[in-house]
Amino acid sequence: MSANALNAPGLRAWIDIPFQHDFPIQNLPFGVFETDERGPRLAVAIGDYVLDLYVLSQFGFFDDLTELGNAQPRVFRRRSLNGFLRLGRPAWRAVRQRVSELLRHDNADLRDHPEAARAALLRQRDVRLLRPVKPANYTDFYSSLAHAANVGTMFRGPENALLPNWRHLPVAYHGRASSIVASGTPIRRPQGQQLAPGADAPTFGPSQQLDFELEMAFVVGTGTTLGTPVPIEQAEEHIFGLCLFNDWSARDLQSWEYVPLGPFLGKSFASSLSPWVVTLDALEPFRTAGPAQEPAPLPYLQASGDHHFAIQLEAALAPAGGPETVLATPNYQGLYWSMAQQLAHHTSNGCNLEVGDLCASGTISGPTPDTFGSLLELAWRGTQPVPLADGSTRAFLLDGDTVTLRAYAEKDGVRIGFGEVSGTILSYEF
Amino acid sequence: MSANALNAPGLRAWIDIPFQHDFPIQNLPFGVFETDERGPRLAVAIGDYVLDLYVLSQFGFFDDLTELGNAQPRVFRRRSLNGFLRLGRPAWRAVRQRVSELLRHDNADLRDHPEAARAALLRQRDVRLLRPVKPANYTDFYSSLAHAANVGTMFRGPENALLPNWRHLPVAYHGRASSIVASGTPIRRPQGQQLAPGADAPTFGPSQQLDFELEMAFVVGTGTTLGTPVPIEQAEEHIFGLCLFNDWSARDLQSWEYVPLGPFLGKSFASSLSPWVVTLDALEPFRTAGPAQEPAPLPYLQASGDHHFAIQLEAALAPAGGPETVLATPNYQGLYWSMAQQLAHHTSNGCNLEVGDLCASGTISGPTPDTFGSLLELAWRGTQPVPLADGSTRAFLLDGDTVTLRAYAEKDGVRIGFGEVSGTILSYEF
Repeated sequence: MSANALNAPGLRAWIDIPFQHDFPIQNLPFGVFETDERGPRLAVAIGDYVLDLYVLSQFGFFDDLTELGNAQPRVFRRRSLNGFLRLGRPAWRAVRQRVSELLRHDNADLRDHPEAARAALLRQRDVRLLRPVKPANYTDFYSSLAHAANVGTMFRGPENALLPNWRHLPVAYHGRASSIVASGTPIRRPQGQQLAPGADAPTFGPSQQLDFELEMAFVVGTGTTLGTPVPIEQAEEHIFGLCLFNDWSARDLQSWEYVPLGPFLGKSFASSLSPWVVTLDALEPFRTAGPAQEPAPLPYLQASGDHHFAIQLEAALAPAGGPETVLATPNYQGLYWSMAQQLAHHTSNGCNLEVGDLCASGTISGPTPDTFGSLLELAWRGTQPVPLADGSTRAFLLDGDTVTLRAYAEKDGVRIGFGEVSGTILSYEF
Repeated sequence: MSANALNAPGLRAWIDIPFQHDFPIQNLPFGVFETDERGPRLAVAIGDYVLDLYVLSQFGFFDDLTELGNAQPRVFRRRSLNGFLRLGRPAWRAVRQRVSELLRHDNADLRDHPEAARAALLRQRDVRLLRPVKPANYTDFYSSLAHAANVGTMFRGPENALLPNWRHLPVAYHGRASSIVASGTPIRRPQGQQLAPGADAPTFGPSQQLDFELEMAFVVGTGTTLGTPVPIEQAEEHIFGLCLFNDWSARDLQSWEYVPLGPFLGKSFASSLSPWVVTLDALEPFRTAGPAQEPAPLPYLQASGDHHFAIQLEAALAPAGGPETVLATPNYQGLYWSMAQQLAHHTSNGCNLEVGDLCASGTISGPTPDTFGSLLELAWRGTQPVPLADGSTRAFLLDGDTVTLRAYAEKDGVRIGFGEVSGTILSYEF
């Protein structure tokens, strides 16, 4: 059975999965969980359950998977996917295929093994989902044309919105890996230097312009060698899968500090990563062409075939105790630079990628205001506060606000969902 | 015996150490080495020797050091110092003190134990010195006023040399941790996009403006908690020691790519780290005041006492097969922002530091041309090529050039040296 056969719309699991659920048998994203009784374990999401891969391994369901070498069962009892990723794509595919087989409606091996099934399947609501990878390095791109143009228009005016390099290379910067946290981790409002309008010296205090950024991040599954660029046709071979990513931003800190070396403390206080990594294999049916690129990129950034993915995104905000308002619904497909282009560019100077690296897209905004991926853009630098369902408005985030990002791809009645990443703003005061 | 007693000028080792050697008994920097027979081991440098800490541990010389818990001997048989650093400052101090005792001229425990001494002491020229830490995260500051003013003058003119934020905060950016390599690792000339003067579209090819940057980097030995800023008075408690650091830079790639998000591929192809980490304890006698800061920094960046260190630096260049020319000799003491200020600022927004993090100073330049820490400044953007001892000149680095950085602090006849970090430029072609 090929990797693609695992995506067939006709596949059904013996577990009951509601229509349009994020985690049907065609998805099988990887993550890490723990409970009070179990230390951290690798798992696959299926419907409302997590499937404990360590338990499956202990019950012998992976015994014949030679791709795992002698790494099992211990590689499944880890706090991150990194060790599993190091086993390589044949191992990832072998496990995903075996899990798919075990969950098929016509396969009794696990279904009719009450002891194993009871041990391996836990309700997702009964476990704590952890950060799925330990980020070795984190890079943030800036690959949405609408976002770059919006920000450029606000800060430099419409005639200088896009800087001269933007259409020639996927602009990016190194981000802070240490402060990438699991979904659900509260986000403490950062303090920092800011320059009040008209002031000639900065003050220090809690950020007044706290924002979210709706992003996707890909996980590097296969590292590269220092000094050896990756040709664009091979770029996707290094990608394991994708997550949702919220690159929290303190706009006031950022605008004061960022010249000439880029964002630093305005970003490094926290970024939030969704718990489930959706594999590139699961997204194969949603491959599509990206926007036309004009001018044509240099040869090292040109690839044949389709390297974009049609993924519907959503950003929502809920005040403390209040109802949620969907703020924006852009599509990942609209990103100007593809993951393959990002990775080829990233390694073009010989820079090496490591297993567990995260490469985020940058804020994803579409062409219309209902598709802007940050409050900075939605409220247009605070000039047009966004109305919420509870009657209040937001220019920037308030303490107690919860931001939740969601995403899915859907076709032929099958939804490949990403679950969600969320975070609630805490006061800067302890 | 206090940590300071280990620095007493009167201390002598039973190993013969030439006058003004970098590694007298007062220094005892930590590093990692391997040989064909021995896997990676932690070591201390003493004179022309490395002292194998794993061997010392196996022979029982650390048996009574309760600060090491049950981590020995295995913590000394590692590819990086990170595990040892995690044991905390009491463990670092206990090992340094024991090593100092064992090496004193009047201590016979190791000296008169031929088997142990023969196994523990190897000539430095007979071992391979490795990268001492696995960098968890890497931050590059921009803390030399002369460097920032030089670069600003070249690119924006003398009236806009320093940007408005520079005297208010230690400007910094996140660098690439994965491509930090050991001294001696060849540096392949990167390829990348560059915009020729007058051109309206970039081309892709080998960098023509390859440069070095003379920097110092401090190693974080004690991590911090996400969401919890470190008060400046406690900042140095998190620092283990310092290394030499060469932040290789491709100026043509950098100047095209860096707006608006900062340096990326112009830096991420490689940085070189010296093999020996000189502890902050060993540098204690060289503590000194820094330059006056005007305007006074905000309160979270104000500290009582002296937080700069008088360390003499040197950058030298040798063409392939040719003699070496010393290009610059600035002093670390002249840095505008201290390590304590850098660390307090870095964590002021709640960003967490991890054990093994590297925080580099940025290029260190003094006020006069013989103290400029990069070719960009020495040759003033290529307009005044630098003469070398072999009669050639350099605007930027050529293939085959070897750049070597050195540093030492000296007082009362005792030199606390850093050894060196060097790298040779390879052609971009394989």
